[in-house]
Amino acid sequence: MTLACPTPRHEEDVVLLGHGAGGRLTAELVDALVLPALDGQHGPLEDAALLPGHPDLVISTDSFVVSPLFFPGGDIGSLAVHGTVNDLAMRGARPVALSVALIIEEGLPLEELRRVMTSMGKAAREAGVPIVTGDTKVVDRGAVDRIFVNTTGVGQRHLALRPSAALARPGDTVLLSGPVGLHGTTVLSTREGLGFESDIASDSRPLHRLVDVMAPLGEQVHSLRDPTRGGLASALNEIARDAHVPVEIDESAVPVPRAVAAACDLLGLDPLTVANEGCMVAFVAPAAADEALAALRSLPEGREAARIGEVPSSGEAGRVTLRTLVGARRVVEMPLGEQLPRIC
Amino acid sequence: MTLACPTPRHEEDVVLLGHGAGGRLTAELVDALVLPALDGQHGPLEDAALLPGHPDLVISTDSFVVSPLFFPGGDIGSLAVHGTVNDLAMRGARPVALSVALIIEEGLPLEELRRVMTSMGKAAREAGVPIVTGDTKVVDRGAVDRIFVNTTGVGQRHLALRPSAALARPGDTVLLSGPVGLHGTTVLSTREGLGFESDIASDSRPLHRLVDVMAPLGEQVHSLRDPTRGGLASALNEIARDAHVPVEIDESAVPVPRAVAAACDLLGLDPLTVANEGCMVAFVAPAAADEALAALRSLPEGREAARIGEVPSSGEAGRVTLRTLVGARRVVEMPLGEQLPRIC
Repeated sequence: MTLACPTPRHEEDVVLLGHGAGGRLTAELVDALVLPALDGQHGPLEDAALLPGHPDLVISTDSFVVSPLFFPGGDIGSLAVHGTVNDLAMRGARPVALSVALIIEEGLPLEELRRVMTSMGKAAREAGVPIVTGDTKVVDRGAVDRIFVNTTGVGQRHLALRPSAALARPGDTVLLSGPVGLHGTTVLSTREGLGFESDIASDSRPLHRLVDVMAPLGEQVHSLRDPTRGGLASALNEIARDAHVPVEIDESAVPVPRAVAAACDLLGLDPLTVANEGCMVAFVAPAAADEALAALRSLPEGREAARIGEVPSSGEAGRVTLRTLVGARRVVEMPLGEQLPRIC
Repeated sequence: MTLACPTPRHEEDVVLLGHGAGGRLTAELVDALVLPALDGQHGPLEDAALLPGHPDLVISTDSFVVSPLFFPGGDIGSLAVHGTVNDLAMRGARPVALSVALIIEEGLPLEELRRVMTSMGKAAREAGVPIVTGDTKVVDRGAVDRIFVNTTGVGQRHLALRPSAALARPGDTVLLSGPVGLHGTTVLSTREGLGFESDIASDSRPLHRLVDVMAPLGEQVHSLRDPTRGGLASALNEIARDAHVPVEIDESAVPVPRAVAAACDLLGLDPLTVANEGCMVAFVAPAAADEALAALRSLPEGREAARIGEVPSSGEAGRVTLRTLVGARRVVEMPLGEQLPRIC
């Protein structure tokens, strides 16, 4: 008698929280299930895609399921505006228009809905983007947790800018526009009542003006990415993978606010994997690095911009390495799955 | 001693199911709360809006929360493609691109996700529209009911067509492209296990080709609307209101399938208020009515197109009247709120 090796019962597999975390599990789900079904002929799904027949326009969509709805530095309404504006910006585009779709749980206080909508309107005005169309669905109690918001944006590309994760190349300087870890630790601390939320606030903000000021550098700007879910670790790993280059960063150069470091220590989190909503990574040609850094620092949202690393001329393609404070090196892994569910 | 009249405590008001039903309550919520917050300067939110700076392009968004996920004639995936394609079509546009955003409950069987995605891909191919970008969020069990899908679409307008609800005018002929009531009664019957679902199927289908064949009629096509939530009653009332005209239809001319009539009888529903996902109403100049009807009937999805009424030269502006089989007249009211929650 032999024991048969059990065949994996794929039809019993279920979606896990980690499938939505923006890390390796998300990539596997999208690559193995979503893309084949939606038809490869149209190429890969990207955060912001070119509009067919209109190569000067890009489109991007994002759903926001953050819990709690309100937190220091923002709320689901402002986050929904900034998130999509930033996805467009990372393709070198200014926002032209947003759509808003609400899914609301029956029984949500109108006052909370009003706060979310007011914040959303304010964020859109400040970003200079009109909300031109919308949809409102109400579902029975228990079918959704309070309110989820989808925004989809159309952006107009800067003619000179053609940033892509695939365009990073050896010699590039890696710039970061501001400190990391604020959004994720703020939302988590607020949700769990950890107390850090009195010292920190989400960095949620629009980033398209940082892209505007880099436009004169044109094609010397190779790659832009906002390190949201999966944090800086995901963003750098995606660029290293897509451009087939190694990336090295200096631990001492990455700005981590003291309260973020304290919260991450307590929670056993790596600040490099915590979500941000108001900073971006730029890979630029070395000759343009000083000018790019000065441009970023010329705006309030880029005041703390820093040079954090480079693309070395040798090393394993696709690998991200951190040079630690004591001179050692460690690999910065792509986060596997969900550390912080419902962070955006 | 006097009794003070209690002041309404608006901050205790909550969102009701009916606020999402597409009827009067939805209009009140959007007009009183959403639009002022999102900033009136950008004008009213429409189902499909012109893209600022690109008057040949329109954008439309819709979230789909239908329960159950699968029903005769479709599922949440195909519905999400058809719904947005049709919103674009009602502005006289062909679909150029769709975005897809998924919110998935932890624990959803991957096999169900695959079925939804496969159906969505098939529907997009059949409609000739690429899905160019997407987003996947996974939330904890209980935070969403299985899976909700948002699609946002960009469409290219036919240069000759400028349909608008506001453009219906006295003398117009009212055309309907197919029978009413199939989608709503199918979903409800499937959800509740009423048994009608063996005789009927959702009419979910793309309508943009019906619009294509009417394009040669140009500005003689005044208003187009797909009677989704709130059914034919809502669609006609919206056009009557926005164009400040009366509308009269003949009960005997509105095609109501036998099984739909039976289901509505049992459930106490008016077929005119039941949601459709595959027919449209067209208000056309009387001189173009015959040609428009022939054009609609030239396609399979318009095979049962019919002339159902007209805009009389006198009568109360904004009022929709039904001439009954026995020669009486009754007012067709705008549905107040939710008859059939989570129908799309």
